[in-house]
Amino acid sequence: MTTTNQYNEPAPAAPARDALLEAVSAGVRVHDLGRPLKVGMPQSPNHPAYWHTLPRRHGDMVREDGGSAANDMITMGTHVGTHVDALAHVSHNGLLHGGTDAAEAGRGGRYLDHGVHTIAPMVCRGVLLDVPAALGTPQGCPPGYEVTPADLERAEEAQGTPVREGDVVLVRSGWGRHFDADPTRYTGRESGVPGVGAAGASWIAGRGARAAGADTIAFERLAPGAGHAVLPAHRILLVEHGVYIIEAMDLEGIAAAGVHEFTFVLAPLPLVGATGSPVRPLAVVTR
Amino acid sequence: MTTTNQYNEPAPAAPARDALLEAVSAGVRVHDLGRPLKVGMPQSPNHPAYWHTLPRRHGDMVREDGGSAANDMITMGTHVGTHVDALAHVSHNGLLHGGTDAAEAGRGGRYLDHGVHTIAPMVCRGVLLDVPAALGTPQGCPPGYEVTPADLERAEEAQGTPVREGDVVLVRSGWGRHFDADPTRYTGRESGVPGVGAAGASWIAGRGARAAGADTIAFERLAPGAGHAVLPAHRILLVEHGVYIIEAMDLEGIAAAGVHEFTFVLAPLPLVGATGSPVRPLAVVTR
Amino acid sequence: MTTTNQYNEPAPAAPARDALLEAVSAGVRVHDLGRPLKVGMPQSPNHPAYWHTLPRRHGDMVREDGGSAANDMITMGTHVGTHVDALAHVSHNGLLHGGTDAAEAGRGGRYLDHGVHTIAPMVCRGVLLDVPAALGTPQGCPPGYEVTPADLERAEEAQGTPVREGDVVLVRSGWGRHFDADPTRYTGRESGVPGVGAAGASWIAGRGARAAGADTIAFERLAPGAGHAVLPAHRILLVEHGVYIIEAMDLEGIAAAGVHEFTFVLAPLPLVGATGSPVRPLAVVTR
Amino acid sequence: MTTTNQYNEPAPAAPARDALLEAVSAGVRVHDLGRPLKVGMPQSPNHPAYWHTLPRRHGDMVREDGGSAANDMITMGTHVGTHVDALAHVSHNGLLHGGTDAAEAGRGGRYLDHGVHTIAPMVCRGVLLDVPAALGTPQGCPPGYEVTPADLERAEEAQGTPVREGDVVLVRSGWGRHFDADPTRYTGRESGVPGVGAAGASWIAGRGARAAGADTIAFERLAPGAGHAVLPAHRILLVEHGVYIIEAMDLEGIAAAGVHEFTFVLAPLPLVGATGSPVRPLAVVTR
Repeated sequence: MTTTNQYNEPAPAAPARDALLEAVSAGVRVHDLGRPLKVGMPQSPNHPAYWHTLPRRHGDMVREDGGSAANDMITMGTHVGTHVDALAHVSHNGLLHGGTDAAEAGRGGRYLDHGVHTIAPMVCRGVLLDVPAALGTPQGCPPGYEVTPADLERAEEAQGTPVREGDVVLVRSGWGRHFDADPTRYTGRESGVPGVGAAGASWIAGRGARAAGADTIAFERLAPGAGHAVLPAHRILLVEHGVYIIEAMDLEGIAAAGVHEFTFVLAPLPLVGATGSPVRPLAVVTR
Repeated sequence: MTTTNQYNEPAPAAPARDALLEAVSAGVRVHDLGRPLKVGMPQSPNHPAYWHTLPRRHGDMVREDGGSAANDMITMGTHVGTHVDALAHVSHNGLLHGGTDAAEAGRGGRYLDHGVHTIAPMVCRGVLLDVPAALGTPQGCPPGYEVTPADLERAEEAQGTPVREGDVVLVRSGWGRHFDADPTRYTGRESGVPGVGAAGASWIAGRGARAAGADTIAFERLAPGAGHAVLPAHRILLVEHGVYIIEAMDLEGIAAAGVHEFTFVLAPLPLVGATGSPVRPLAVVTR
Repeated sequence: MTTTNQYNEPAPAAPARDALLEAVSAGVRVHDLGRPLKVGMPQSPNHPAYWHTLPRRHGDMVREDGGSAANDMITMGTHVGTHVDALAHVSHNGLLHGGTDAAEAGRGGRYLDHGVHTIAPMVCRGVLLDVPAALGTPQGCPPGYEVTPADLERAEEAQGTPVREGDVVLVRSGWGRHFDADPTRYTGRESGVPGVGAAGASWIAGRGARAAGADTIAFERLAPGAGHAVLPAHRILLVEHGVYIIEAMDLEGIAAAGVHEFTFVLAPLPLVGATGSPVRPLAVVTR
Repeated sequence: MTTTNQYNEPAPAAPARDALLEAVSAGVRVHDLGRPLKVGMPQSPNHPAYWHTLPRRHGDMVREDGGSAANDMITMGTHVGTHVDALAHVSHNGLLHGGTDAAEAGRGGRYLDHGVHTIAPMVCRGVLLDVPAALGTPQGCPPGYEVTPADLERAEEAQGTPVREGDVVLVRSGWGRHFDADPTRYTGRESGVPGVGAAGASWIAGRGARAAGADTIAFERLAPGAGHAVLPAHRILLVEHGVYIIEAMDLEGIAAAGVHEFTFVLAPLPLVGATGSPVRPLAVVTR
């Protein structure tokens, strides 16, 4: 979903005293990179499924003054829909990022030092690397295709948007087109899923990215039939370099719009001690 | 929590082609207006309580390659922690905003036209109206105090930040200081809670605000001992004017910093058909 | 699981003053007809999946006196594992059993008159009709096989256990052997599932049974590839005759033991207003 | 709730071939010792609250043939409503019953050897010790009153129902009358709760009971204002002697009916690895 700022202020008499607000007030376009959370959407079977229900609906009871309130109950894992992985999500050889003992860190039932609540909100430069466009197959990479550093650099160059330190890097594979159309294919257990492998993850970390996102269910290349058994990009990004991962993003809209460089905004829910959070990332550009 | 953009690009050779990104890259300060979501935090008893648990912890099982993943299960209502009320939340005399039949709208177990997934992400001007500061009692308004239009205008003038059409208006009462310190008092069933009444809500709607936020558990003045029985501000804002409500915000940080005008960012989770969503709103200013 | 009463009292000096207790004290064998509830077990995708997790484990925190308590969080539908369907579960042409308006009955978010809490505990005669044994294929009926009234009568006669008014009738198809071994096959969307059709359901209702159970995920014959689209046995038993249905039972043990007539015990959880409950039915016989 | 077997078979031509079934067929009365599970019922704040909601109600969608199904979603701890504590629930000095390392036992997120799924169904003698009746205050013991071994023996003698090895012992304090009437008082944090202390628990274990039940939220005497900080009866019964505990039972009905000796039936849900289960225990007597 892409929305535009429908309330722009002409307001010439009131000069914004803030450069950022001035830019916003001049008019911005907001690209929504998050997918709607729906019962039955594709998600990893390793996590509790997203369920939503209405305990109270309008019509159940009405107050004397005519008012009525409806409400919700939700149960879910945190790695559902478009979501961010906190550093607490993955360990290697018993250690979390920074060498913390992973088993000890979870004592008490929450990860206080590496949980998703420790992720600072992001308002920074974001770059979309549209790999299939750069490779000449704009609809998408083939199933199981490994996106290489050379592919990432080809996208950088084709777009004229080099990745810089502190950026958020979003890697489009085109696989997101299956999210609604073919949920089984989207999870890709049989078909495999295109994505970054160990080399690509190292390249991203080496560029100093603060977070890396993809349009696939895992930020990984999954070989056909292999499932989620080995996840080198998670190890390299989360454990070795402290780079957050954002998964199941909707990158089709900004790709179609040719938006490759933007202000990226992410505010994960501060779920204390959790290993991830569903999120609604934004790519914002001047209109 | 307030964070600063630690990755500013000097990048003189790469001129930002986007006014917004240029402003962001020059350095911004992000004020976090969302409260951490913790088991046991104060919340309305009308909604399922927030619970978080770890089905799998590090140490439970390790893959052959040394990797391990931990995950989460969450159950909650949507009106927990800092949260936004969608238009589906409240009806009056059987009607939702715009005259939709409220009982019919919920058939199927979700509100497709008025649910929280229909709230467009907000990147716009925000104004904090620090009422207790304007009234000379900066720590906070007394329990049960009704914030009047005159109070709101006094804050506007004292701060030099008039509310304009399309803004998000945040009304500080100071009550947020009880959130962690005295959860029972925060919910205020006995003591009452300060806040906007019918007149204040009409004033906000009349100014053309797109959303209104507060540091209290309900965007209402609650009389001592009266509970949540009558909620005029909800009716006026949600039902009559289609103005979203944001509750249980943390406004102490921006008040202390004297930040009264800012770029407000809100991206509610697009929970299809739900009446609300926990959120992490941001106030962003040039550094 | 079959257990025996390991604490029999010889107690000749203390004559039981109750015939039932005397029979129990003389020694009984308890056959467990309920399946263990495990994350990942086969269940209908129409219902929220069963999830169990430990918010607090031993080792998380220890009281000063050395004590520690672990606890659980569960989310689930009610039609999970071995379970009973309450009369509120199914309606036909807008009516529940007895002609109640089904939509009205659910106002308020619970079925007060037809919910599972209204099922009285059962301590009564139970009869297992081992259909495949009677048909000479003791391992099980073929996929999609419709169990007919003639089949049910053949089992009655072969076993010498006529169904009487007030009995609980358990119909074995043999399909239960797939529950653990092949969960996908157990749910049978592709293969079809053997079971009672409209004629068999009418036969059971005509005999005056108070409840009917099966070893399949639905008390129905499911045609191969047809899914759960039409459920005539549910309509006949629940809506037309007020006969409860018990599904996903483990009937292999009593079939192997040749136990065809027994004291049947069922105490559904009194979940107020719910449409069903997971249960652990027992077949008890004198040892 | 007390129900009677409304389907007694006269059936003189069909002699029951089973002593137990013969006794049942002659007519039994079933006393329900479980409390209805309702949203908002009193429960310990240490456990996730019981919530029930209907994702799908009748009227949401109707199949072409006129059929419709409603369903449920439940989230809860397991120590809610009337419930049984498995041996996995409590450890002392790091050990579960039998000397198992408690922290190790929970690795993997479930207690495979001590979980509630390991509790065999109970069909055995049960004895109600109606302490307040024996003490001459039949309505109930005072708040915080400690039930002593002498009190238990007085009840045994007054009733003529000595506890024998293998029995389930239910200790009535009368506190159950507050469950519906005054939920805050029922949990007793301020007032204290009557119950068995260390001496009484040792007495029960010494008699060889297989399980012990009470009409209070914890099977403990709770001193006024002391909360649930020290739980000696849990340690003695669960950890030291492997005796299961049943809590929040409804014992008012059998006490009023003068039923002190009965066939006790309990079939906990086999929630694999969980520390407890809501249950609906039965006391059954010949009519």
